[in-house]
Amino acid sequence: MNNTYRNVKLASLMGSERTTVRVGDVEIGRGLTVIGGPCSVESEEQLLEIATGVKKAGAELLRGGVFKPRTSPYSFQGLGLKGLKIMEKAKEATGLPIVSEVLDTRDVRWVSDYVDVIQIGARNMQNFSLLKEVGKLRKPVLLKRGMQSTLEEFLNSAEYILKEGNPDVILCERGIRTFETYTRNTLDLSAVPALKELTHLPVIVDPSHGTGRASLIEPMSLASVASGADGLIIEVHNDPPRALSDKDQAITPEQFSKLVKNSRVVRSALEGLT
Amino acid sequence: MNNTYRNVKLASLMGSERTTVRVGDVEIGRGLTVIGGPCSVESEEQLLEIATGVKKAGAELLRGGVFKPRTSPYSFQGLGLKGLKIMEKAKEATGLPIVSEVLDTRDVRWVSDYVDVIQIGARNMQNFSLLKEVGKLRKPVLLKRGMQSTLEEFLNSAEYILKEGNPDVILCERGIRTFETYTRNTLDLSAVPALKELTHLPVIVDPSHGTGRASLIEPMSLASVASGADGLIIEVHNDPPRALSDKDQAITPEQFSKLVKNSRVVRSALEGLT
Amino acid sequence: MNNTYRNVKLASLMGSERTTVRVGDVEIGRGLTVIGGPCSVESEEQLLEIATGVKKAGAELLRGGVFKPRTSPYSFQGLGLKGLKIMEKAKEATGLPIVSEVLDTRDVRWVSDYVDVIQIGARNMQNFSLLKEVGKLRKPVLLKRGMQSTLEEFLNSAEYILKEGNPDVILCERGIRTFETYTRNTLDLSAVPALKELTHLPVIVDPSHGTGRASLIEPMSLASVASGADGLIIEVHNDPPRALSDKDQAITPEQFSKLVKNSRVVRSALEGLT
Amino acid sequence: MNNTYRNVKLASLMGSERTTVRVGDVEIGRGLTVIGGPCSVESEEQLLEIATGVKKAGAELLRGGVFKPRTSPYSFQGLGLKGLKIMEKAKEATGLPIVSEVLDTRDVRWVSDYVDVIQIGARNMQNFSLLKEVGKLRKPVLLKRGMQSTLEEFLNSAEYILKEGNPDVILCERGIRTFETYTRNTLDLSAVPALKELTHLPVIVDPSHGTGRASLIEPMSLASVASGADGLIIEVHNDPPRALSDKDQAITPEQFSKLVKNSRVVRSALEGLT
Repeated sequence: MNNTYRNVKLASLMGSERTTVRVGDVEIGRGLTVIGGPCSVESEEQLLEIATGVKKAGAELLRGGVFKPRTSPYSFQGLGLKGLKIMEKAKEATGLPIVSEVLDTRDVRWVSDYVDVIQIGARNMQNFSLLKEVGKLRKPVLLKRGMQSTLEEFLNSAEYILKEGNPDVILCERGIRTFETYTRNTLDLSAVPALKELTHLPVIVDPSHGTGRASLIEPMSLASVASGADGLIIEVHNDPPRALSDKDQAITPEQFSKLVKNSRVVRSALEGLT
Repeated sequence: MNNTYRNVKLASLMGSERTTVRVGDVEIGRGLTVIGGPCSVESEEQLLEIATGVKKAGAELLRGGVFKPRTSPYSFQGLGLKGLKIMEKAKEATGLPIVSEVLDTRDVRWVSDYVDVIQIGARNMQNFSLLKEVGKLRKPVLLKRGMQSTLEEFLNSAEYILKEGNPDVILCERGIRTFETYTRNTLDLSAVPALKELTHLPVIVDPSHGTGRASLIEPMSLASVASGADGLIIEVHNDPPRALSDKDQAITPEQFSKLVKNSRVVRSALEGLT
Repeated sequence: MNNTYRNVKLASLMGSERTTVRVGDVEIGRGLTVIGGPCSVESEEQLLEIATGVKKAGAELLRGGVFKPRTSPYSFQGLGLKGLKIMEKAKEATGLPIVSEVLDTRDVRWVSDYVDVIQIGARNMQNFSLLKEVGKLRKPVLLKRGMQSTLEEFLNSAEYILKEGNPDVILCERGIRTFETYTRNTLDLSAVPALKELTHLPVIVDPSHGTGRASLIEPMSLASVASGADGLIIEVHNDPPRALSDKDQAITPEQFSKLVKNSRVVRSALEGLT
Repeated sequence: MNNTYRNVKLASLMGSERTTVRVGDVEIGRGLTVIGGPCSVESEEQLLEIATGVKKAGAELLRGGVFKPRTSPYSFQGLGLKGLKIMEKAKEATGLPIVSEVLDTRDVRWVSDYVDVIQIGARNMQNFSLLKEVGKLRKPVLLKRGMQSTLEEFLNSAEYILKEGNPDVILCERGIRTFETYTRNTLDLSAVPALKELTHLPVIVDPSHGTGRASLIEPMSLASVASGADGLIIEVHNDPPRALSDKDQAITPEQFSKLVKNSRVVRSALEGLT
C-alpha cells in the first residue's frame, strides 16, 4: 500500500508508522481504549452516576452528547452549554477526559474549550465546513463513518481535517445502512482490518449504534477487538428504559463492566498471537 | 393519509391542499418547472453562455454551485462570493431567478441576499443546524433527499425548516445509494408519487445526479414527468468534457433544449389524462 | 457500445438491430405490450373473471402464477398442474397467450407445453441450472432481474439462455432491494434506458413488485413507459383484499383499464417526440 | 425469544436447547469447527495437495466445489462427477468428511451419495425447490445466507428444509451486498449473535466470500470466533494466483494453518469468559 488512492496523494494513507492520539494519559492506538457514557447528558445526577460506573468498569474516556442530531425536530435536542458544564463536573469527579459531538461550525471553538475529544457524527461525515473547522483545532477529533459512506470517502473526510493541520484523527466504524432491519445498522467490521491496511490512523468501533440492540453489544465488542480495533465506544445508561434517546441500545454499568473485562481478555489473547 | 406519521403530527404531511412555492413569476407546484445550469460556476463567460442557453431552451430558473461539497479536499471547491457575483450578472442578463447551495450555517444569511432559492444538498439533508438556519429565512429552500435517507427521514428534515417558520420547501429526489454501479446513484422515482401522497410540498427530480450519465438524463426526465414530478433540475454545461465537476453527467444547451421540449410534451399528455 | 463487456463477447449486447419476441400475434419490442393477471391462480372462477377483465382493458397477454416462490413454507404455494389447466381454459376463453413462472428444472419441459412464455422469477435469476434448461426450449422466456443483481449480472443471466440457443429473452426490471421501506422494493427505472443502450433485447417493467403499493402502480407505469419500456406486467385481482398472495399490490380490472389507457396515451406522446 | 416470528410458529426458532450436527466424528455446534479447501476442485493433484495441507493445519472438514454457480456462462463451470470422484479420493487419503454444493434438484440424490454435507449456496437460498429436495435427505445441509437476504428470510429458508424432515441444518453467514466496493461483500457478523438468540441451529461464517480479499480473512476469522460463531469455512488453494475461480480470496495452506491456530486461541479465551 502506498500513499496514493485513485492517483491522489493522501496524508491519511499508510506510510512508515502508525499514528497514536494522546488524550490526557491515554494513548489511542496503543492497546485497547474503552470509551463509555450515555447517548445524551440528561442531568447532573444521571451523568455522575454513569461516569462513576464507567470509570469503575475500566473506561478511560467518558462520552456524552449535548447537541443531539435527531431525525425529528420534535425529539429531545440535548442540553447544550448546560450539558457541557455537567460533563465538566463529571470530569472533575472521575478524572476521565470527555468526548462530545459538535454539529455546527459556529460552536466548534467554544465547545472545544470544554471537551478533550471533539466528535463528528455519522450524519456530518461529509459536512465539509465542519471538517475544515475542526481541522484548525489542536484537539483530537473522533470521526465517525457515515452510514452510507465508502472507505474511500471516509479517508477523504479524514483528509479534510489533516489538511488543515490537525493530525489527531481517530476513525470510528459505527455501522452502515443496508436492507437488514433486525439490527439498526449493519456493523461493517471488515472496515477495521481494511482501514488498518490503508491508513496509519487509529480505528475504533461503536457497536451500540452499529447494532442498536443491547443483547448484541458485548459479542460485537469482542468481535471488534478480535478484528484488530484500537478501541470501543459504548452507550451506557443507569436506567436504559428511561433514557431520553437510544434506549434500545443502552447497557447498564454492570453490563458494561463485564464487556470491558471480557474485551480485555480477548485483546490479551490477540496480543499473544504470532 | 392524515397529518401524523409514527404518532408525530407533522406540518409537512398532506392536509387539505397542496403548497406551491413562488419564485419571481414562477410558481413551483403548478405545471412543470425546469431548472438548468452548471454544476459549478467556473467563470463569467461560462455562466453567461450557459444561462443564455438554458433560458432560450425554456428553463425558468438558473442553477449554479459556488460552494461545492467535494469528496476530496484536493478537488475544486467552488468560487464562493466571486461565483455569487457572477450569478447575479447572469440573472440580470437573462431574468432567470437563481438557485445555489449553501454548506455552512455562517453563510446562510449573506448568501441568501444573492440567491432566489437556497439549496440544501444531499450530504446536508441531516445537517440539522443548517436546516434550522434556513428555516429562519423568508426565501424558498430546495431540499435534496440524502443518498441514504428514507422518505420518513426526508419529511422530518423538511419539518425542521417548516417548524422554524419557513413554509416554502421544495423536495428534490436525486437518487439513492445502492449496490448498482452502472449508474452513479439509483434514481428512486417511486419517491415522487409516494411523496405526493404523503406531503403537500412540491416535488422535483434531479436526473443528473440520479443517473450520473448524460445518455440517461433525457429518458429519466421524461419518466420523472410521467411519475408526476412538479419539476426538473438539470446540469447543463457549454463544454461537458472540460467541466470542473460532474462532467459525465453534464449535457449541452442543445441536448437540454430537446429535453425541455420533450418533457413538456409528456407533461401535456399527462394533463389530458382522466 | 460494442458487443463486449469486461472483455467477454456477449450475444446479449447491442449489435446492429433490436430483437423483438413474437408471442402469438404480439411482437414484444415493437410498441407497448401490456401483460396483466393475478399473482396466483386461485380458482377457475377467479381466473376467468380476471382474464376477461384484463382482455377488455386491453392487455395482450395473461399472467398467472401456479408455482409460487414464497418466503415461508407455510404460505400458499400455488395450484401447480391444476392451475395450469385453469390457465389453459382462460386462454381458450379470451385468446390471450399465457405467461407463468417455473421454479424447478424438472418442470421446465412439461410446463412449457402449457404456457406461451416461461417466466424466470427474481429469486431464480442466478439459478443457472434453470437458465440453461429454459435455454434449450423454443419458447420465449421472461427473465426478471434479481432484487440484488447488477445490470452486468442480469445480462450474463440472459446470456446463459441465449448461449443454449434460445434467442427469445425478454428482460424485466422489477425493483431492487434497498434500505427504503415505504416501498416493497425500489423500482430502478434507469435500468430501462441503461439496458436499452447495452442490449438488443426487449425490456419491460413490473411496477407491481417494484413498488408493492397499489396507489403507486399507475404513476410508475406511466414513468416506465416514458423511460422507454417495451411493456408492463401488472398484478390484477378481482378482489384484492382477499388475494391469497401480494394483496397490497393488486389492482382491480377497473384500475387496470385506466392504467392501460393512460399508458397508451403516454406511449403515443413518446412516439411523437423528436 | 419464543418460537414464533411474525405470528408463524417456526421449528427453527430457539426452544429449550441448541442443535448440534454430527458429521463423522465432528459435532458442529460444539466447540469450533473449521472447514477448508479450494473454491473449485481443479484436478486430483491440486485437491490432494490442498486436502493434506488443510488436514495438517487442523481442519475437520474438506470443502470443494464441483458445480460452480458462475455469473458468466463463459467462466469455468466445475468438473461435476469427475470432481466428486476426486473429492472421494481426498477423503480416503485424509479421512476428512467432504462438503460440496449442489445447484440442481435433479442432482441432489446422487450427489448426496458422494458428500457428507450438502451445501446450498447464497444464490440458491431462496431456490425453494432445491430446499425441499435437500429437506428429504438424511444428510446435513450447510445453508448459506443469500447476499440480499434478511435474517427472517434466512430462517424461513432453513424452515423449508426442517419442514421436510431434515433436522441437520447449519447456517452460514457469508456477507451481504451493500454499496461498499472495497470488499466483495459486507460480512455481517452481527448476524452471528443475532441468529444465536433467534434459532437453535449452529451458525458458521465464511470470511472468504464475506471479504473477497486474502489480507482480511484472518482478522475476520478471529472476529467471527469472538462473535460466537460455531465454525469457519475458508477457501484454501495451493497456488492462489492460478486458481480457476476466486483467486483474490484464496489463502495458502500455510496462511490457513496460522489462521486455524490463532482462531483456536481466541476460542479458548472466549470459553474462559464469565
